[in-house]
Amino acid sequence: VKKLLSKFWGLNKETWNLAMNEPKKLIHGFKVGMALSLVSLFYYMKPLYEGIGGNAMWAVLTVIVVFEYTVGATLSKCLNKAAGTFLAGVLGIGVHWIARQFGQKFEPVILQGSVCIISAAATFSRFIPSIKAQFDYGVLVFILTICFITVSGYRVENLLELALHRLSTIAIGSSICILTSMLFCPVWAGNELHNLIRNNMEKLADSLDGCIAQYFGCDINSNNTQSETSNNILLGYKCVLDSRDTEESLANFARWEPAHRGFNFGHPWKEYLKVGASLRSCAYCIKALNCTIDSGAQGPDILKNHFSKCCIKLSSNSSAVLKELVVVMDTMTKSPKIDFKVSEMCSAVQEVQNALKALSKQPIANPTIISLTEVIPLVTLSSLLIEIAGITGKIAKDVNGFANKA
Amino acid sequence: VKKLLSKFWGLNKETWNLAMNEPKKLIHGFKVGMALSLVSLFYYMKPLYEGIGGNAMWAVLTVIVVFEYTVGATLSKCLNKAAGTFLAGVLGIGVHWIARQFGQKFEPVILQGSVCIISAAATFSRFIPSIKAQFDYGVLVFILTICFITVSGYRVENLLELALHRLSTIAIGSSICILTSMLFCPVWAGNELHNLIRNNMEKLADSLDGCIAQYFGCDINSNNTQSETSNNILLGYKCVLDSRDTEESLANFARWEPAHRGFNFGHPWKEYLKVGASLRSCAYCIKALNCTIDSGAQGPDILKNHFSKCCIKLSSNSSAVLKELVVVMDTMTKSPKIDFKVSEMCSAVQEVQNALKALSKQPIANPTIISLTEVIPLVTLSSLLIEIAGITGKIAKDVNGFANKA
Repeated sequence: VKKLLSKFWGLNKETWNLAMNEPKKLIHGFKVGMALSLVSLFYYMKPLYEGIGGNAMWAVLTVIVVFEYTVGATLSKCLNKAAGTFLAGVLGIGVHWIARQFGQKFEPVILQGSVCIISAAATFSRFIPSIKAQFDYGVLVFILTICFITVSGYRVENLLELALHRLSTIAIGSSICILTSMLFCPVWAGNELHNLIRNNMEKLADSLDGCIAQYFGCDINSNNTQSETSNNILLGYKCVLDSRDTEESLANFARWEPAHRGFNFGHPWKEYLKVGASLRSCAYCIKALNCTIDSGAQGPDILKNHFSKCCIKLSSNSSAVLKELVVVMDTMTKSPKIDFKVSEMCSAVQEVQNALKALSKQPIANPTIISLTEVIPLVTLSSLLIEIAGITGKIAKDVNGFANKA
Repeated sequence: VKKLLSKFWGLNKETWNLAMNEPKKLIHGFKVGMALSLVSLFYYMKPLYEGIGGNAMWAVLTVIVVFEYTVGATLSKCLNKAAGTFLAGVLGIGVHWIARQFGQKFEPVILQGSVCIISAAATFSRFIPSIKAQFDYGVLVFILTICFITVSGYRVENLLELALHRLSTIAIGSSICILTSMLFCPVWAGNELHNLIRNNMEKLADSLDGCIAQYFGCDINSNNTQSETSNNILLGYKCVLDSRDTEESLANFARWEPAHRGFNFGHPWKEYLKVGASLRSCAYCIKALNCTIDSGAQGPDILKNHFSKCCIKLSSNSSAVLKELVVVMDTMTKSPKIDFKVSEMCSAVQEVQNALKALSKQPIANPTIISLTEVIPLVTLSSLLIEIAGITGKIAKDVNGFANKA
């Protein structure tokens, strides 16, 4: 019982945190509730009821199944549903007509056989990656409708009327969904994607700063907030590593959305995926950086001093570029500072490389003073920083590219 | 038109490849078709039709929506559907009873209000991670049923009968699904998870071997197959990086499955996730290894010779451990060789560490002979190999742990 109670308590806390951190999701719940009560009006009000009849139930079902969190997802589901229903309707009536030609006796056999084959093929097609990504729901609706038509068509006489009824209820349900999701506090997939990429950049910049600050011990924060900070560092790059699936589905949905908040229809959403991928490679580097630091292999102090200046400069320059890119993404116009910051970063890279070269020319491997094993962490660190700077440069190019296009 | 044709051709090829590589998925399609024709029998056969009536449509819908690729997923969806329908039924009848007490005038208002609030709360709960992972479909069915009951209950007089009908059709649909998915070529989520982890191990072992072979130029294969091999290397570890979501959902579904193929009910599936996570860290290291190699920074030949022997030994020992673990997973009994191989790997780690130490004691940084920058790739490589060996040791411990338990 105690275990159950603590589980319940945990769930409660989780719910509360979610509601506090993402009130949009709470609002989404109420939007669904509102859409459902709107659509159920068709059922309650006598004159409307007589117009559409018992089929109104289908409109309710449509709302429940189709209403998604983002506008793009809702639109894509509606289009999928409409296309799937229409195609299945046409095919179903065709199959029905053919079956009828074979006479009363063979009709059910033909119908059942075709249901079996068509649904098998459609189910298999849902495994094909390119169909799964965009038309999964459409194919499901297709199977559903074709079963509905071929099976019930055997009983119901006026098949065409049935199909029209179903289409009209779906249209009612879909339009209520689309209107509610677009008019009341809309959540645009494109906007979400934009913010996700923007926030990931910011997180990486902070991670990088925190990481280097921790290593070179120049932490400005007082001890109290230090554990919190280092925790945030860890979470920062990990979020970026895990965001691939979200990015891809958001980019898929964003394509369906009309112009909103400065994003035109046909905004280059695919470019965002490229930037996302670069951010992820950057996050891998920061992960490696963290591993190097966590391994506790501190270089000797003389070397650390030798490197600290240029490494800190490079990392702060890289994170400055990332932060400037955040500004670029906020305004969606090329920032005048960005080119300057990128070139500053490049010169910092040069400095670190010079420091590395200088190191290799000094007789540091004199075993009595410094051994090679002690040099390794610093060398790894600086080469990782150089790589991060390289990726940052690439991200800057991509972001400027689509900021210009938009 | 040409673009469309080439797209169509690409899709065709994709479909063909999928069907050839994973015939199980093709079979799944036919299983769905079979289940659908089975369930539509209720509709075609007169005596059965009279027993269940037009509600038979619900059984067909249940089959379409509930039938999933793996047995575990189908079972979990069926249980979700049953639980959601039952809970919503009880709650719906309760709401209905309360609404009726307020008289004819207020009844629709109360009903609509409660539909709005209940569905809003339920929709929001779908965002909570722990509910989303396991009960997403159940909550959807809950919303669907509660709308169905509260809305249509206003018209249909014998509500209890409606609820019973719906439950019985769901039971028919679900049992047909479960029977078909379990009796004909069943695809067990647990088995899939087991194979996924096993194959990932094999891929990593091959990646590691190929990577090191490429670097030290001791590629045994002829030139023809080389490009193919290096391609496989790349794909190998990338698959492992991307398999997290699949692993988690399979582990979730595997918990529902009865005993099968040597896996008891209550098999430690969560342990597989741990192993999967370790494999992923190993894949990160191999990725880093590949980056180091791709950067083209070859160390000088003298050093390469100095390192090649022990590095090749370490990597082949690590991959031997991984391959032995594949055998352990195949037989699910602790292999007698595994401890020996792990200790061999540990001694190889020691050798590489000694080589590193020896390197740092030699006056190699004599600028005229070898500069530090040239040493770096080799040092990075060996430290990555040491890390891989460490993770491999951890994986060996985990796998032996659950091989003993099973």
